[in-house]
Amino acid sequence: MNRRLIARVVGLILGIEALCMLPSLAIALVVRGDDVMPLCWAILSCSAMSFLLLLVRQDSKRLQARDGFVAVALCWIFLGLFGALPYAFYGFSYADAVFETISGFTTTGATIVATPSALPRGLQFWRALTQWMGGMGVLVMVLALLPSLGEGSVNLMKAESPGPISSKLQPKTNETAKALYVIYIALTLAETIALSIAGMPLFDSLTTSFTTISTGGFSVRDASIAYYQSETINWIIVAFMFVSAVNFGALFQLQRGQWKEALRSEELRVYTRITLAAAALITLDLVLKMGKGLYESISQSVFQVVTLMTTTGYCTADFDLWPAFSKAVLLLVMFVGGCAGSTAGGVKVSRFVILFKALRRELRRVLHSREVRPLTLEGARVEEGTVSSVLVFFFVYVVILVLCAAVVALDGVGLETSLSAALTTISNVGPGFALIGPTCNFAFLSALSKVVLSLTMLLGRLEIVPLLVLFFPSVWVKK
Amino acid sequence: MNRRLIARVVGLILGIEALCMLPSLAIALVVRGDDVMPLCWAILSCSAMSFLLLLVRQDSKRLQARDGFVAVALCWIFLGLFGALPYAFYGFSYADAVFETISGFTTTGATIVATPSALPRGLQFWRALTQWMGGMGVLVMVLALLPSLGEGSVNLMKAESPGPISSKLQPKTNETAKALYVIYIALTLAETIALSIAGMPLFDSLTTSFTTISTGGFSVRDASIAYYQSETINWIIVAFMFVSAVNFGALFQLQRGQWKEALRSEELRVYTRITLAAAALITLDLVLKMGKGLYESISQSVFQVVTLMTTTGYCTADFDLWPAFSKAVLLLVMFVGGCAGSTAGGVKVSRFVILFKALRRELRRVLHSREVRPLTLEGARVEEGTVSSVLVFFFVYVVILVLCAAVVALDGVGLETSLSAALTTISNVGPGFALIGPTCNFAFLSALSKVVLSLTMLLGRLEIVPLLVLFFPSVWVKK
Repeated sequence: MNRRLIARVVGLILGIEALCMLPSLAIALVVRGDDVMPLCWAILSCSAMSFLLLLVRQDSKRLQARDGFVAVALCWIFLGLFGALPYAFYGFSYADAVFETISGFTTTGATIVATPSALPRGLQFWRALTQWMGGMGVLVMVLALLPSLGEGSVNLMKAESPGPISSKLQPKTNETAKALYVIYIALTLAETIALSIAGMPLFDSLTTSFTTISTGGFSVRDASIAYYQSETINWIIVAFMFVSAVNFGALFQLQRGQWKEALRSEELRVYTRITLAAAALITLDLVLKMGKGLYESISQSVFQVVTLMTTTGYCTADFDLWPAFSKAVLLLVMFVGGCAGSTAGGVKVSRFVILFKALRRELRRVLHSREVRPLTLEGARVEEGTVSSVLVFFFVYVVILVLCAAVVALDGVGLETSLSAALTTISNVGPGFALIGPTCNFAFLSALSKVVLSLTMLLGRLEIVPLLVLFFPSVWVKK
Repeated sequence: MNRRLIARVVGLILGIEALCMLPSLAIALVVRGDDVMPLCWAILSCSAMSFLLLLVRQDSKRLQARDGFVAVALCWIFLGLFGALPYAFYGFSYADAVFETISGFTTTGATIVATPSALPRGLQFWRALTQWMGGMGVLVMVLALLPSLGEGSVNLMKAESPGPISSKLQPKTNETAKALYVIYIALTLAETIALSIAGMPLFDSLTTSFTTISTGGFSVRDASIAYYQSETINWIIVAFMFVSAVNFGALFQLQRGQWKEALRSEELRVYTRITLAAAALITLDLVLKMGKGLYESISQSVFQVVTLMTTTGYCTADFDLWPAFSKAVLLLVMFVGGCAGSTAGGVKVSRFVILFKALRRELRRVLHSREVRPLTLEGARVEEGTVSSVLVFFFVYVVILVLCAAVVALDGVGLETSLSAALTTISNVGPGFALIGPTCNFAFLSALSKVVLSLTMLLGRLEIVPLLVLFFPSVWVKK
């Protein structure tokens, strides 16, 4: 293992993290908040650590595949541990601070803060910014800014990028990384402007855009998006959430004017259909079982389906009070998640497409002797190794979900809370049901649960494998 | 498709079902119960239908693979529809009667009868006997009795036998089918004698043995096994449940004196370890969180872990009142189930062994370029097609589980009830949590839920594929 180079990568990441804290400090200084000193201390600690790690002498530029996994896993863990410092110096317990930070970087949006509106402005900004940084992937940012890693960068990106299949647009080079960031920034600016025009204060618009485009879900308001009481704002956010969970490859094609190719995407069509079907089912349930009006039902169901399917996790209504069937549908879309190659979490739509195709093939195989036809996705053949990886991914996803739920159950919180806590963290959604429903938060859980849930968020964000390989002894052997 | 031969097979099965109702009628006549006429009508209807189907002229003895699936699926559906007649003529609604019968044949043990002790003796006996018939597989019985299907029988057995891997002992011929029935009957007799000696009335001993060895879980007592208030009886039942969920191949080896080979079985060792670990965790939880005594905790946790892991589903304690962590562990063992090639349900231990080995291999593959080593189970290489089938099986198992839970949620029963109802039926366990906990029953659910749960029980018992292939249009095309 190339320990020196990994140490340097982590050092670099911490340096960037310190830089990213500066805007928060600036805001804190302008409004003279009581978070000036916490932010100063955090920036100092972060910079010092970064400086120490960058002192390590580099011996080779070569980063092997397993080094990539280790580097990515360690970077994310260090980002969480050091990104927690502003909260910790402000007075949070360290477990809470780490939970909140990892929830931010993984774009989960689960929170231990009951009243985010009571946080000082600087911390509010940092909280939203962690999601924005985490959405695109922190290492993608490094690549975009700094191509010095050379050929090793491919292995870094492979470990951090979501989705089962490497599309043409995966950030293999700093060029594509830059192209992705352009889309990302453009979307964020567009939403900020739209929300401002719709009447949202500028600070709220910017932080909300940060957490929409990253499908994160933190809000600076205690009641989340329900606070603004504006249908216009709701629908703007719905549109931007929906777009952010679309494969950025398709967005890239759109940007280039290749409308046909983009709209022909198989994953995009399935994603749209699931969203519409789920919203229709819930609308029906709300009208029939709760006697709500049709427009109100449509508006609320579309918002909640989109926010949970894209794994954002805002809320405009307390869906924990909805009928059991609606809640089951919501759990389902949380499990599915958005498209691969987007900022969304969950198992991902393209994986489900592959899973169902594998099932159909299995049934055909059982019936018609032993023929094995190759699977296709987006018109191209899917390698058998990829199919197998996707099947194994589904298995390990469920296993982690269940184990995480069992640990949370140790707090004596009941099945609905523990299971939805596990699901909402591994899928990087945010809110769950019952005790961690949209009007509640995670503060009451034990430190053990918070640590395990933080780990589950990381597993979900990094799509499990990069973290799991750390438990392989052979990773730690020096070649 | 060989429709004529399939019709004859179904006719044969219904004939056997009518015969199997005769002992119940005899009992009803002896005790002069009010179930004499219902049983008479049921036997008449069943025989008439059987007679009609057997009139179909056979044109060829050849039963292809897909015919095997169709035959097995139809047999089980007809068994459920006609086996329900005694209950229906006695006064149950037909949906309830079918639910109870399919719960019997699939050895699930979920019931809509609040007070089974109030049923007349003949129906009590029929209820227990359905489980005993279903445990070994009704078609295995046909094979054991009647080898007339010739070469087509292999395809029938392939469709009905549980487990991912064809062991040497799978009933490919009527010889092995007979050998399995010898073990099955010997176990049933041994338990009947043991329970009688321990003080249980003879009728209870026999019906309890029927439902233990088949890992079914119906009881003639309202309080299930808790009624007998005897630690001796509890431990006898624990032992027989545990043995019944062991691969009958291993039991066959034991019977032949091949102790070493039998005990070296990888699946058996994992099965034992999971049982012990789960019981230990729950014991700890009961002692620490509920302040129960150590012996009581051990006794109750061992009984409940074994009864749920073997997918039997008796109860000696209301585990719905146990702490959330214990309930999570119980859900986990219900999901895992017993060994392949036994009467138990669930995903099966050997499948989990393969799943975890596939995961380990995937991680290794990611780290060390593209090497793919073959998986092994019980010392033998597992074909890639089998690994893939097991992975797909896990996926479709979870999908059906979730869809079934969503339908049950339509009754507005909450997540814990709907999810545990889906799990307990697909794994053929019996009781669940909350509204369908061990002291409750399924009677209050809607007819839709009952139908869907019945279907889920069948899917679980037939290991999904034989039923799912019915939805393939190509199955119904005449060649």
